Amino acid sequence: MDFGIDTIRTAAERLHGRVRVTPLLSSPMLDELTGAQVLVKAESLQLTGSFKIRGALDTLLSLTAAERDAGVLAFSTGNHGQAVAASAQMTGARATIVMPQDAPRIKVEGVRWWGGEVVFYDPSTQDREDVGHGLVAERGLTLVHPYDDVRVMSGQGSVGLEVIDQLREGGHSPDAIVLPCSGGGLASGTIEAVRSTHPAVTPFVVERDGYPKMARSLASGRVETVPAVPVFLDAIGSPTVGQHTLAALSRHPVTPLTVTDDDARVAMRAAFRTLKLVLEPGGSAALAAVLAQRERFAGQTVVVVASGGNVDASVYAEVLAG
Amino acid sequence: MDFGIDTIRTAAERLHGRVRVTPLLSSPMLDELTGAQVLVKAESLQLTGSFKIRGALDTLLSLTAAERDAGVLAFSTGNHGQAVAASAQMTGARATIVMPQDAPRIKVEGVRWWGGEVVFYDPSTQDREDVGHGLVAERGLTLVHPYDDVRVMSGQGSVGLEVIDQLREGGHSPDAIVLPCSGGGLASGTIEAVRSTHPAVTPFVVERDGYPKMARSLASGRVETVPAVPVFLDAIGSPTVGQHTLAALSRHPVTPLTVTDDDARVAMRAAFRTLKLVLEPGGSAALAAVLAQRERFAGQTVVVVASGGNVDASVYAEVLAG
Repeated sequence: MDFGIDTIRTAAERLHGRVRVTPLLSSPMLDELTGAQVLVKAESLQLTGSFKIRGALDTLLSLTAAERDAGVLAFSTGNHGQAVAASAQMTGARATIVMPQDAPRIKVEGVRWWGGEVVFYDPSTQDREDVGHGLVAERGLTLVHPYDDVRVMSGQGSVGLEVIDQLREGGHSPDAIVLPCSGGGLASGTIEAVRSTHPAVTPFVVERDGYPKMARSLASGRVETVPAVPVFLDAIGSPTVGQHTLAALSRHPVTPLTVTDDDARVAMRAAFRTLKLVLEPGGSAALAAVLAQRERFAGQTVVVVASGGNVDASVYAEVLAG
Repeated sequence: MDFGIDTIRTAAERLHGRVRVTPLLSSPMLDELTGAQVLVKAESLQLTGSFKIRGALDTLLSLTAAERDAGVLAFSTGNHGQAVAASAQMTGARATIVMPQDAPRIKVEGVRWWGGEVVFYDPSTQDREDVGHGLVAERGLTLVHPYDDVRVMSGQGSVGLEVIDQLREGGHSPDAIVLPCSGGGLASGTIEAVRSTHPAVTPFVVERDGYPKMARSLASGRVETVPAVPVFLDAIGSPTVGQHTLAALSRHPVTPLTVTDDDARVAMRAAFRTLKLVLEPGGSAALAAVLAQRERFAGQTVVVVASGGNVDASVYAEVLAG
């Protein structure tokens, strides 16, 4: 696997001017709530509402004209799907997105808004990779993997390069960085980048309570699988991790944490009140871990990646009602 | 009145590193909704959740030690109050904030969180300026006016200097700039700044439908007063404008617009869905005008100032429910 700070830098150069530099935000009220100095990388403000455009667009830009003409496919609960549909539109390709029937509506609408064709599957009876690979074979499409691809991991790593610049500008020295973890693309890229300049920073990845596929994979040294995660935290819902993402994360002293749906609700309300950010449940997972484990982070400077903000209005209103 | 680009630059230098540079955001979906290229200056992400910290802190920093020791007072529906309380805390002063009984709870809590003392008044029977001036005389406090003060207007104008930088970085040439208008502090400062480098930009100020105090004041050339604005759009709820803000805005070809509460609701939902920003009703007024008057802005590049995000969760949930 040729993955590291050099592939991340190359991806960031390719993405320059095409994706947004998202702000690193903070709030004195949030610092009081957590007992830490929390710096929130607001990828919810990224084009398509999540970090996923970084890895997807980096991949689309690396395809040959023939591959783009034939079209691309992604399987996704929604954020990767929107990102691939948008990247396809930006590069003149056609996108087919395989999504679970119960995906948030805002994500389905987002894929279609960007011109992607949606193909639904039933997550209780079908495996999304089987459905996706079937369509790839049938239609001659190129699969844009949601995480287990060096281009995707490197693109997501551009989050980390921005964080490095923003830490320097703010005069901050981080003790920890905390990221939501689904298949591991965001975590592997960002941790690789940030630890290239801050080797002492402690990396944490956050999974759904009861579905710790990355924790188990890091422990056993091989790819482990869990059942499908309940839909609320769909953005960290991958039932497994990648060969490449596991190998990349294994280079670092990663501590896995878990959060419950209620932890995410608390974090979404805190982001609403103190940062004025709309976060989706999975996008709030890292903040949720820092809020739920006050003792662990007390007194530290903690970079928290808020990975996305694509949440249905009805779900968000329910969460605010508490 | 000594107010202009020089006083704004001086204020911006004083505020540098103490307030945030807020992002200028955009969304392809929002551009489709409006038919324009919309660039949203997200002052909702500012410290204290609105632009008000700029003018308040600029004023507090200009006080003598004796004035700071004696304490400051502000009358405010909430955003200016939070800003003055925060600015007082940041400069070692004590703040008394006069607020209407029906102010949004999140704003009352914000004032108290920053260490401000809240004094309520009844907006149906009392005039907030009378209450404020009474306390100033009684306690020997310095009044920090919410808008009609050159230091406040110059501080708010730092929004415009940031917009100029961000337009240049993005390679944008704006046709119009649209701002919410309460007493006119934000509008006068920001329009003065942006038109110093973009003299051809058309400035718009947005008021509550039926309560056009600035429109009437600009037409008559003197300060006009309207009844108290209903609480939903409290952030643009000043019943009058300032001598200084009116004089400053009169230098420019300002077009006043109005929006209804429902226009603001539509804009809040659009900001939620397309930008993932929490906007309060008054903070969405400029975006509401652009959404409601599609024909006026079609095909143009429009800078929209989203002035604040301090909205109670219950109100926000109701707006999302539509």
